[in-house]
Amino acid sequence: MSELRLPPGPVDLRGLPSDATPGFTGDKADGQEALAALGPELADLQERLFAEGTTGSHRRVLLLLQGMDTSGKGGVLRHTVGLIDPQGVRITSFKAPTEEERQHHFLWRIKRALPEPGIVGVFDRSHYEDVLIGRVRGLAEPRTIESRYGQINDFEAELARDGVVLVKCMLHVSADTQKERLAERLANPEKHWKFNPGDIDERALWPDYRAAYEAALERTNTEIAPWYVIPADRKWYRNLAVGWLLRDALHGMNPQWPRADFDVEAQQRRLEQEEPVS
Amino acid sequence: MSELRLPPGPVDLRGLPSDATPGFTGDKADGQEALAALGPELADLQERLFAEGTTGSHRRVLLLLQGMDTSGKGGVLRHTVGLIDPQGVRITSFKAPTEEERQHHFLWRIKRALPEPGIVGVFDRSHYEDVLIGRVRGLAEPRTIESRYGQINDFEAELARDGVVLVKCMLHVSADTQKERLAERLANPEKHWKFNPGDIDERALWPDYRAAYEAALERTNTEIAPWYVIPADRKWYRNLAVGWLLRDALHGMNPQWPRADFDVEAQQRRLEQEEPVS
Repeated sequence: MSELRLPPGPVDLRGLPSDATPGFTGDKADGQEALAALGPELADLQERLFAEGTTGSHRRVLLLLQGMDTSGKGGVLRHTVGLIDPQGVRITSFKAPTEEERQHHFLWRIKRALPEPGIVGVFDRSHYEDVLIGRVRGLAEPRTIESRYGQINDFEAELARDGVVLVKCMLHVSADTQKERLAERLANPEKHWKFNPGDIDERALWPDYRAAYEAALERTNTEIAPWYVIPADRKWYRNLAVGWLLRDALHGMNPQWPRADFDVEAQQRRLEQEEPVS
Repeated sequence: MSELRLPPGPVDLRGLPSDATPGFTGDKADGQEALAALGPELADLQERLFAEGTTGSHRRVLLLLQGMDTSGKGGVLRHTVGLIDPQGVRITSFKAPTEEERQHHFLWRIKRALPEPGIVGVFDRSHYEDVLIGRVRGLAEPRTIESRYGQINDFEAELARDGVVLVKCMLHVSADTQKERLAERLANPEKHWKFNPGDIDERALWPDYRAAYEAALERTNTEIAPWYVIPADRKWYRNLAVGWLLRDALHGMNPQWPRADFDVEAQQRRLEQEEPVS
């Protein structure tokens, strides 16, 4: 889905569609069907990667999800990541850093959460929070924030050298869509637990968050770890588009079933000729 | 599914069916459909439990899977556990203990892997390995092994007091089914990576493993943490039966959506009356 790839250069999020469905002409029902149809392909590719990981390969995937509140990171986890075998997935949700985490470099907790070889790691928020809320809320000195973009690029380049295929997705919703989704949460008692009055306070900072996203996207949109901006006003398209990107990443890795490191026919004979077991 | 609950007293695994389908009269296709139909109910219950966990409740589920090689622990993870939102699941696969783990009490690594409140934890193998392979392979002194049954019961009672609902499943396959499944792995190059010549050596110890399972099942089949023995020769039934048990456990907990701890109407007004955002 190269159409979703953010071109290099300055980023203007208001100029990027949040309600389009690039690469797909069907409606919601078609989109949900297309996602379900991706399931077997994703499952096959993921299992191959997992198998490869048992034989010394360092290759793995890291799907990184960023986006404003209600942009649907949880929905992608449930509907898209949920298509693949949970044994092969490692999800980490990054909250506000703990006391211990704050005493370390901002990448410390990130490095501890990297997927093992053969695994599809998923970050629900990530080190980008340290140049997003970190910048908007002034959680560090401006020059510290400033230094982080380069540190992130160095870190991601290092990951790529170590076999990590990074898929960085920004789930792009409009402020109006966020407002609708917050209103839905308030209207449905089964969703009250997802709402926090602070969510409305954060909306007042929307332009600041937008600017922080624009800076982060521009400065970390590297050749080796590009950004994808996913129109996310339509949940079904958002889920499908991330599915495509995950499929493309796995497909590009072309993981292979490991060859047997034993004599298959000899083992077949052993099994045939064993003493009765019960 | 009380039919699957192991009755108290001595256990004779050869007398327990491995190819039956208790509680279900349909065929494979019906069983797969029934499992898929469980999905929404499981997802709803799991999300309620998760929501409850955000409000101070300590309740969680621990699904514990044991069984001989090829009994299908991985299949249950993929097909049954895979039905629920991966954000609410924590799977731990216990391998042979590491150097560090061997230097600690056998429950040390288990305690570190317990699910957080609101989470469905899944153990693929567990502390029971320490009275199964531990006994068969003589990995500890007989009196040490002997002491573990009581320690396990004490530990599980403590978990129950701390809000953990334990679902202990023994996936029961016959030796013949295992042989067929090993032969399938050998016949299919895509499955060679799952095969190890040592798997055939282990089969020679089948009666010892059976005796170890029988002792473990009998001695840890407590009121508060009973065992379920799942006929597992038919993969579809095994997946469905574990789904039922998970559903029953969650249903019995009756998790409730948390009530809003804020004034819903006041927040609705705030959202309505906010300054335009973009």
